[in-house]
Amino acid sequence: MTATTMAAVSIPPTSVSAIGRRTRLVEGESKVTGKIRFVSDISLPGMLHARFVVSPHAHARITSIDTGAAAALPGVAAVLTASDLPNVPPVSRQRLLLARDRVIFAGQPVALILAESEAIAEDALELVSVQYEPLPAAVTLEQALAEGAPLVWPGGKPGESEEAAAHGADVGGEDAQENKASNIASHSQFDRGDLAAGFAAADQIIERTFTLSSVHQSPLETHGCAVQMDPYSDQVTVWSSTQGPFMVRENVAAILGLSESDVKCIGTPVGGGFGGKGCLYEPLLALACRAVGRPIRLILTRNDELIATVPTPEGRIRVKLGAQQDGTFTALEFDVAFNSGCFPGSPIGISLLIGGSMYNIPNVMVSGADVLSFRQSVGAYRAPGIPQSMFALESVVDEMARALKLDPVELRLQNAAGPDAQLINGKPWPKMGMREVLQALQAHPVWQQRAQAQAAGRGVGLAIGGWLGGTGPASAACKLERDGQLHIQVGSADISGTNTGFALLAAEAFGIAPEKVKITNNDTDGPAFALNAGGSKITYTVGHAVAQAALETRRQTLAHVSQLLEVDPEDLDIVDGKVQVKGSPDSAIALSELAAKTMQFGGTLAPIIGHGRHAVTAQSPGFCAQLAEVEVDANTGEITLHKLVIVQDVGRAINPAAVEGQLIGGAMQGVGWALHESMLYDEYGQPITASWMDYNMPSFVQSAPEVETVLVEVPSDFGPAGAKGVGEPPVTPTAAAIGNAIRDAAGIRMTHLPMTAPRVVEMLQGAE
Amino acid sequence: MTATTMAAVSIPPTSVSAIGRRTRLVEGESKVTGKIRFVSDISLPGMLHARFVVSPHAHARITSIDTGAAAALPGVAAVLTASDLPNVPPVSRQRLLLARDRVIFAGQPVALILAESEAIAEDALELVSVQYEPLPAAVTLEQALAEGAPLVWPGGKPGESEEAAAHGADVGGEDAQENKASNIASHSQFDRGDLAAGFAAADQIIERTFTLSSVHQSPLETHGCAVQMDPYSDQVTVWSSTQGPFMVRENVAAILGLSESDVKCIGTPVGGGFGGKGCLYEPLLALACRAVGRPIRLILTRNDELIATVPTPEGRIRVKLGAQQDGTFTALEFDVAFNSGCFPGSPIGISLLIGGSMYNIPNVMVSGADVLSFRQSVGAYRAPGIPQSMFALESVVDEMARALKLDPVELRLQNAAGPDAQLINGKPWPKMGMREVLQALQAHPVWQQRAQAQAAGRGVGLAIGGWLGGTGPASAACKLERDGQLHIQVGSADISGTNTGFALLAAEAFGIAPEKVKITNNDTDGPAFALNAGGSKITYTVGHAVAQAALETRRQTLAHVSQLLEVDPEDLDIVDGKVQVKGSPDSAIALSELAAKTMQFGGTLAPIIGHGRHAVTAQSPGFCAQLAEVEVDANTGEITLHKLVIVQDVGRAINPAAVEGQLIGGAMQGVGWALHESMLYDEYGQPITASWMDYNMPSFVQSAPEVETVLVEVPSDFGPAGAKGVGEPPVTPTAAAIGNAIRDAAGIRMTHLPMTAPRVVEMLQGAE
Repeated sequence: MTATTMAAVSIPPTSVSAIGRRTRLVEGESKVTGKIRFVSDISLPGMLHARFVVSPHAHARITSIDTGAAAALPGVAAVLTASDLPNVPPVSRQRLLLARDRVIFAGQPVALILAESEAIAEDALELVSVQYEPLPAAVTLEQALAEGAPLVWPGGKPGESEEAAAHGADVGGEDAQENKASNIASHSQFDRGDLAAGFAAADQIIERTFTLSSVHQSPLETHGCAVQMDPYSDQVTVWSSTQGPFMVRENVAAILGLSESDVKCIGTPVGGGFGGKGCLYEPLLALACRAVGRPIRLILTRNDELIATVPTPEGRIRVKLGAQQDGTFTALEFDVAFNSGCFPGSPIGISLLIGGSMYNIPNVMVSGADVLSFRQSVGAYRAPGIPQSMFALESVVDEMARALKLDPVELRLQNAAGPDAQLINGKPWPKMGMREVLQALQAHPVWQQRAQAQAAGRGVGLAIGGWLGGTGPASAACKLERDGQLHIQVGSADISGTNTGFALLAAEAFGIAPEKVKITNNDTDGPAFALNAGGSKITYTVGHAVAQAALETRRQTLAHVSQLLEVDPEDLDIVDGKVQVKGSPDSAIALSELAAKTMQFGGTLAPIIGHGRHAVTAQSPGFCAQLAEVEVDANTGEITLHKLVIVQDVGRAINPAAVEGQLIGGAMQGVGWALHESMLYDEYGQPITASWMDYNMPSFVQSAPEVETVLVEVPSDFGPAGAKGVGEPPVTPTAAAIGNAIRDAAGIRMTHLPMTAPRVVEMLQGAE
Repeated sequence: MTATTMAAVSIPPTSVSAIGRRTRLVEGESKVTGKIRFVSDISLPGMLHARFVVSPHAHARITSIDTGAAAALPGVAAVLTASDLPNVPPVSRQRLLLARDRVIFAGQPVALILAESEAIAEDALELVSVQYEPLPAAVTLEQALAEGAPLVWPGGKPGESEEAAAHGADVGGEDAQENKASNIASHSQFDRGDLAAGFAAADQIIERTFTLSSVHQSPLETHGCAVQMDPYSDQVTVWSSTQGPFMVRENVAAILGLSESDVKCIGTPVGGGFGGKGCLYEPLLALACRAVGRPIRLILTRNDELIATVPTPEGRIRVKLGAQQDGTFTALEFDVAFNSGCFPGSPIGISLLIGGSMYNIPNVMVSGADVLSFRQSVGAYRAPGIPQSMFALESVVDEMARALKLDPVELRLQNAAGPDAQLINGKPWPKMGMREVLQALQAHPVWQQRAQAQAAGRGVGLAIGGWLGGTGPASAACKLERDGQLHIQVGSADISGTNTGFALLAAEAFGIAPEKVKITNNDTDGPAFALNAGGSKITYTVGHAVAQAALETRRQTLAHVSQLLEVDPEDLDIVDGKVQVKGSPDSAIALSELAAKTMQFGGTLAPIIGHGRHAVTAQSPGFCAQLAEVEVDANTGEITLHKLVIVQDVGRAINPAAVEGQLIGGAMQGVGWALHESMLYDEYGQPITASWMDYNMPSFVQSAPEVETVLVEVPSDFGPAGAKGVGEPPVTPTAAAIGNAIRDAAGIRMTHLPMTAPRVVEMLQGAE
C-alpha cells in the first residue's frame, strides 16, 4: 500500500473571523472558581476507597503478607494481594498489578486496601505486615550498567511500553534487542556518512558528557480513577483522569477479557497530565472491582504519585561535535543512555532522531541504550527525551561558537536543517520554520541589547529545540441544537485548551459566534474518537475533524433553509445566528428556529448533524528558540533567571492566548528541568524526593522571570488553518538556553541537570 | 414552501439476511434476570427522596399549609410548597407544579417532601397539615357539561397540552375554542356531503350511544425521575423513565430558564410507558433540586401513579349510520365527547379523523368536544382515542350487518376506504392494507368455522381498527469498533423492542451478524435525535437513520479496504466479519483489524463513523382486524374470552417476534379496555381505583384466551425495508370484536366499556 497523505481541510471564509482571536479558555472560569469536577469528586453508591501498601525495598523477595489485622479493621472491605488477582504476565507496567513474590522498585504496590473511606484505608495501611528478604538492587544508570549488576528481569525482558510508543517513540532506525544477560533493554543507532573522516576534517572538536536527572511530571492533580461494574452484565464504566480514554478502554477490556464494547471510559477533566496520564492503575482497579463487586475509587496521594507513577528517565548523553573554522559542522557523535526503570520504554528513538537531525551534518552517528534498573518505570513527559538531548546538543553548539568565536545565532542558522534536508533516519524533513524562529530570536531586543546585560554582570544565552509533531486519525460530531448552539463532540481529552481552539475553528467554519459553540469530550461510547492527548497532536489532528463536522453542519443548515426559502444555498449566508439571503437580511430564519423545525413532531426536516473524520499522515515540526538572561552569584552559586524570551513557530495560532499559555507553561517546566527538579534515591534505591517538601518543584518565589513570547507563523500545509502542535517545543530548549546564559555570565559550562547553586559553586571552584 | 416527501432509504442486498429474522429482544435477558437498571435503581451522592402530599379534594381552596412538623422530622431535608417555587402560569399539566391557593383534582400534589429516605418521606406525609375549604366539583362528563357546572378554569383555559399534540392529535379540521364560560375547552368538526340527504337515502339507520370509562396505562414501572444540578454552573442532568428524553430536556430547560445545551436528559429503561410517559414531574423536580441544592429522585407510588398521572379520558360517543339494503353506507354521524380532566388535550381530533374515515361514506359529520373537569388530566395511551371510536363505530357496523342480514366481513370490504379514498379532512388516504387485512381475517379458520363455535353456544365477533402512523425527523450515528462490532447510537427510547429491530436493519445494511451490533440510546447530549417513542413512529422514522448510518459506515469500510488492498470497492464484500475480495476470500481483512488501524498511533486511516439523518413526511397507516370467540354465562353474566385472532398489516416485519409481541400486547390491553379496566371516582371526585387491589388490571387468571397472530405484509413505500409502525393498531379493534362476539353469543349489544358481568346481567334482563 502506498502511504496517502490526506489533504488539509480547507475552511472557506464565513461571516465570522474567529481563528486567531485571543479567547479565554472555555473551562477557565469553572477551574478558577472550583466549579469543575475532577475524578476525586466522583462518589458512587457503595463506593470503596483504595490505597496501596507499597514496597520499601528496591528489590526484595516477598516471604509473607499478613492482611488479617487490616482486613479486620472496621470499615475495611477487603485487602487484596496478588493471590487475589489473575496471574497475568507482567508485559508492561500496567500489567504488573500487585507484586507477586518479588518487588522490583521501592514504591511498588504490594497490596490494595479497599475501605469505606480514605481515612480508614490510611489507618489500615500500617496493619498490613509484609515480610521481605532484601536483594541487591541497581538503581542508577551506572549501577545498572555495571558488570555483574543484578538483573531486573533475569527471566526475560518485557516488551517496550505502549505509553512510549503512543508518544511517538517509534521512529525507525536500528533497534537491536540485547540478547546477553544485561539490563540493556534495547539499543538504537542511526548513522550517516563517515564519522572518522568528518572529525578528521574538523578544525575544532567539542566533546562533553552531560548527566540528566529524572524529573517528575508532577501535575497538581494526582493520578486517579474509579471503576464501576454491573455485577450482572459485566458492563464496566471507568472514570479516569487520563489523556487517552480510548487507551484506558482498550487496556481495561483486555485485562478483564471483555470486548471493548462492554467497557466505557469517561475521561474526567485532567488537572495536569504532561504525558504522564495514559493508563496505569485502571486495569488493576477493574480487577479489584470485579473481585469485590463494589465500585472503587483510587486517588493517588502525592507520595504515591511521586514514587509509583512514571517520571522521566535519568540520562547520560555524550556529544562530540566537529566543525570547520568557518562554522560548517562536519561530524556529530551523539550517544544517549536512559535509565528506564523497571520496564523498557524510555524515549531513546525520538531523542536520537531530533538530536541527530537538527543540523545539516554530513557525518553522524547517534546511538542510545534503554537501560533497566530497580526503580519506577518511566513515562512520557512533554517532548519526551528532547529537553535532555537539546541540553546536551545546544550546550555543545554554544561551546563551538565560543571556540570558533562565531555568533551563536549565525552559527545555528548556517547549519540549521532546511527544507531540503533529511532527518537522520533518511526521511525528508517536513516543511518547517527553524530558520524563521532563529531569525525572530536574533531580532529580539534581549538579544540585540545583550551587551548591556553583560555589562551589568548578567549572561545571555540562547538555544533552540523542536518536536516533529503528531499524526493520526480523529473524528468529531457536530449538531445544531434548538437553542441555536452548535454542539460538538470530540474524543480527545482537553489538557491544554484544545476545546477552546475547537470552538474557534468550528465558529469560523460554520459562521457562528464562538460563545455559541459547546464542546463535549465524549466518553468512549460516543461518536468521536481521538488518540491520546500527547505529542502535540490534538489541535493538529482533531481540529480537522471538528472543522469538517462544522462545515458539513453548515452545508446541511443552508440546504434546509434553501428548501424553506426556495433560494439557492449559494445565495445564503449565516450572520448573527440567522441564515439569511445575501443582500436581503430581512429574508432570514434564526438558527434556533431552524433547529426546532428539525426536532418537532411531524417535522419534515432531518436533524442537522455533521460528522468529521480524518487521519493526518504528515508531520509539521515545531521549533522553539529561547533566550535566557541570568545572573550568577559567584559566592553562593545562586542563579537568578531575569528574562526568558520564547520564540516559536506555531504554524497558525488558532487561539493566541492559549498558544502563549502553552509556550509559557512549557518554558516554565523547562526552568524546572534547568534549575530545580530531580528525583533522588538513596543508596538502597529508596526515593528521597517522595513529597513536594523534598521534590523541588519550581515556584513563583524561586522562578519568576520576565517572560515574553514571540509567535512565528510558518503555516503548516496539513494542520487545520495552518496550525501546528505547540505543546511540546517550548520545553525543549530552556535548560540549554539557561546553561548557555550561565556560561555567558560565569564562564562555567554546566553539564548536569538541574543546575543548582551548590553545583555552580563546585564548577566555579573547579574553574578557578 | 412545498411539502417534500423524502424517499425511503433503500438497503441493497449484502451477505447477511437479517431483516425478517425472528430475534429475541436484545435487552430481554437483562430484563427477565433483573440485571437491567431502572430509574429507581439510581442513587446519587447526597440524593434526597421525594414524595407528594396530595389533595383529597377534587376542588377546594387551600386556606393554610403547615409544614413545620414534617420539616422537623429527623431526616426530612425540606418540605416545599408552591410558595417555594416560581409562580409560573399553569399553561400545561407539567407547569401546574404544586397547588397554589386552589386544588382542581383529587390527587393533585400540594407539597413535596424531600427526605433522606423514602421511608422518612412517607412518615413525614401525615405530618403536613393542609387546611382546605371544599368547593363544588364537576367530575364526570355529565357533571362537567351540565348547565351551571363549576368551571375548572374560570379565569381562562390553558392551551392544549403538548403531550397530546406529540401523539398526533393535530389532524386539521375545525377547532373552535369555546368562548362562553363553560368547561368545553374546544370543539372539532369535519363535514362531508349532505348528512340529511345521506340518511334520507338510507334503507336502514342504526344509532347508538356508547359510554367509555377512563382507563390507566398502568405500566409495571411507575413514573420516576431524578435530577442533579451542578450548584456552581447550573448544568443540569435529568434521569427519567421517559418515552421522550428530548421533550424532557426542552421542558426542564424552559422551567429553569436555561439553554437546552445546559440540560442533559438521560432516558433510563422504560418499564412500560404506553404513551403515558412523556414529561410530567421533571420540571417540578428540577425546580426543587435548584431550591435545595441536592440531587432528588422521585419514584411515584402505585397510588400516586393511579391518581396523579395522565390516564385516558372518560368518553361518550354517539354513532348514527345509514346504509342501503345492498350494504352501501350512505351517511355517518359521529359525535364524541371526551372528559379531558383539569387540562385540555384529549385526543378528539384523531378519534374523529379515524372514526370518520374508515369507510367510504359520501355524507359525514363527525364532531367532538374536549371537556374539562375536576379530575386528573389525560394523556396519551396506545392509539389515543381510537379504541373508543372503534368500539362505537364497529359495534354499529356489526348491528348494521345484522339488520341488513349481510356478512359482516363482506359489508366492511364493500365500504372499506381504499387507495383512492379521502380522509374526512380531505387529504388522500395513504397506501394501506385495510382490505388485505379483512381478507386475511375472512380466510381464518376461526371465522370460517364459526358455525361450530356458535353451535357450542359461543359467539364469534370481528372488528377492525387502525392508526395513521407517525412521521418526523430522526438521526443516528454508527461506528466500527476495535472489537469488530458496529456501535449505533439512536436518540429514541426503546419501549417496544425497537433497538432489536435496529440491530437487524443495521446488520443487513452493513453486512454483519446482528449479534455484532450494539445499540445505545444516547442521552440528549449525544449525536442522535428522535421524537418521543409514541404514535408508532420509532422503527418507521429512526429505522431510516439507522440504515443510512450503517450504509455510510459500510461505504467508509469498503473505501479503506479498497485503499489497503488496492482493489475497487465494488469488488469487495463483507462476509463473516471480514472484508474480502469477491471471489478471493483469502484476500481479506477482519473488521476488527481494520477498525484498529483507524484508532492506532500514527494511523493513516480515518475512524469509521457514519451518520444517518432523515425526516419521514408520509404516513403509512396500519390496520388491525380481530376475531373474538366468547362464551357468556347467562346466569352470572360472566364473559369467557376463548379465542382472539389478531390480523394486522405490518408492512414488513423487521423482527416478526417483536411484531407479534406488539400485536399480542396491544390486543391484551384491548381486552383490558373491553372487559376489565375503569377509573372510578366517588361522588366527591375522589378516586376509588387508587391501587391495583381496586383498579381491575387484566391478569392471566382473568383473561388468557388462545391468541393467534396473522401478519399481513403490504409494504410501506416510506418505512425502512417496507416496515410500518405496529404498536398502536392492535389495541384499536379488540373491545369492538369482543362486544360483537357477545352480541353473537347472547344477543345483547353492550354500549359501555368495560363490559362487566353485572352489566351483561343487566342487559340480559333488559333484553328479556
